[in-house]
Amino acid sequence: MATPLNPTSNFFFFIFTVTLLYVAYTIPRHQPRETNLVFYVHDYLTGHDASAVAVAGRAGPESSILHFGTVLVVDDPVTEGPTIESREIGRAQGMYVNSQLDGKGLHLVFSVIFTDGEHEGSTLEIQGADLFSMAEREFGVVSGTGKFRFVKGYGVMVTEFMDIANLRAVLKLN
Amino acid sequence: MATPLNPTSNFFFFIFTVTLLYVAYTIPRHQPRETNLVFYVHDYLTGHDASAVAVAGRAGPESSILHFGTVLVVDDPVTEGPTIESREIGRAQGMYVNSQLDGKGLHLVFSVIFTDGEHEGSTLEIQGADLFSMAEREFGVVSGTGKFRFVKGYGVMVTEFMDIANLRAVLKLN
Amino acid sequence: MATPLNPTSNFFFFIFTVTLLYVAYTIPRHQPRETNLVFYVHDYLTGHDASAVAVAGRAGPESSILHFGTVLVVDDPVTEGPTIESREIGRAQGMYVNSQLDGKGLHLVFSVIFTDGEHEGSTLEIQGADLFSMAEREFGVVSGTGKFRFVKGYGVMVTEFMDIANLRAVLKLN
Repeated sequence: MATPLNPTSNFFFFIFTVTLLYVAYTIPRHQPRETNLVFYVHDYLTGHDASAVAVAGRAGPESSILHFGTVLVVDDPVTEGPTIESREIGRAQGMYVNSQLDGKGLHLVFSVIFTDGEHEGSTLEIQGADLFSMAEREFGVVSGTGKFRFVKGYGVMVTEFMDIANLRAVLKLN
Repeated sequence: MATPLNPTSNFFFFIFTVTLLYVAYTIPRHQPRETNLVFYVHDYLTGHDASAVAVAGRAGPESSILHFGTVLVVDDPVTEGPTIESREIGRAQGMYVNSQLDGKGLHLVFSVIFTDGEHEGSTLEIQGADLFSMAEREFGVVSGTGKFRFVKGYGVMVTEFMDIANLRAVLKLN
Repeated sequence: MATPLNPTSNFFFFIFTVTLLYVAYTIPRHQPRETNLVFYVHDYLTGHDASAVAVAGRAGPESSILHFGTVLVVDDPVTEGPTIESREIGRAQGMYVNSQLDGKGLHLVFSVIFTDGEHEGSTLEIQGADLFSMAEREFGVVSGTGKFRFVKGYGVMVTEFMDIANLRAVLKLN
């Protein structure tokens, strides 16, 4: 997985923090509930535990995620705390696409699949823009399953940690 | 379209069953309605009537859908009954991405476009995780058009039929 | 960016018109609001200001967007008026996939990111089918951020202008 690194980039978007707010409906009463979730996503493009891989782009699978057009497939660990050693409660599976001509924005489409903890067996479906040079980025929660059926909501993503030299990152979902 | 087959896989995820439940809103009253839909999707990666094709992955367009990172584009027939000979009521058009490191999970983003029958002219927009080694998988209905405007909901997908040797399948949406 | 042009195609889908209707919710009252937005998206596959690029397909990054399986990444200007000279109020960033076997339909997943004007700082998340040989195509608004948090809705897309020889287009969102 030769993902070229742009050494001139002075930001690193693979580690981020997200604040999640949602409204759930019950049938037939449709009573809204509002909840805040906090969790962390670890996005590693390099290393023996790499969880993201470029598969298409203007230069094919060798394209850099820092360039417009590159498509990345991810299966990122989701943890309760900011360190990879903290309890894994799920996976973030789907796609990131570099969708900004200057290379500084991603379009995200993925599922957060909870495999342990309070929300085990449920999922959240995410779609949104990640202009990663901004401190905070909001994204949409478009759907969910299990206890999150009929969910609507949004999240806020904040870069938590970056390791430019190795393209590794941690994501906090709040 | 040379889609390599992994002969060691003992499951086949291209045939599945889905139970669909949704809530529709009317403007300005926003009265929810709940409905169950049942339909079948036929997902054939091989044969003269192939309706799914790998277009990207770690090995480029020749990547196997059974491997992490592979992107598949689909235009699958949707029928009223479980056999391909039953009445075609629509098409399932969009993308499947293999988004699990061990190759056993897909991320789905597609439209169900109804072209005949009761829902002709309407669509459902789907996003979800398909961990196809599980008997039942839930996914999100994120939006819709026509009679399904303002829809919210979820679906349940069950593997109905598999033909590993030929990578052909039938999907039931209930 | 060598995007092959199919000279036999007698339509051009990269210019379209969209009517957008949405319902926003406020917490805790969840009062629906209904609004119509009109805006234009300029989709240029050629020229020095090209804003869309093919990155995958049956023939790799050289695949034509007019053929089944091709994946396009876009960062299209969004303007108030139909001409590119009118005020730019945002960008449409995401993916188009040719998802119809005969090449005449796309599956769209993208964000409309408002960067100026009344909706500056907000986004709309879009998913839908674009059968571009039809005069009008409806699509889903699956989520939003900023003032469009908890949004639901749909849009109508109409081809506004086409320049087949150069694969350039203008999109009106109404």
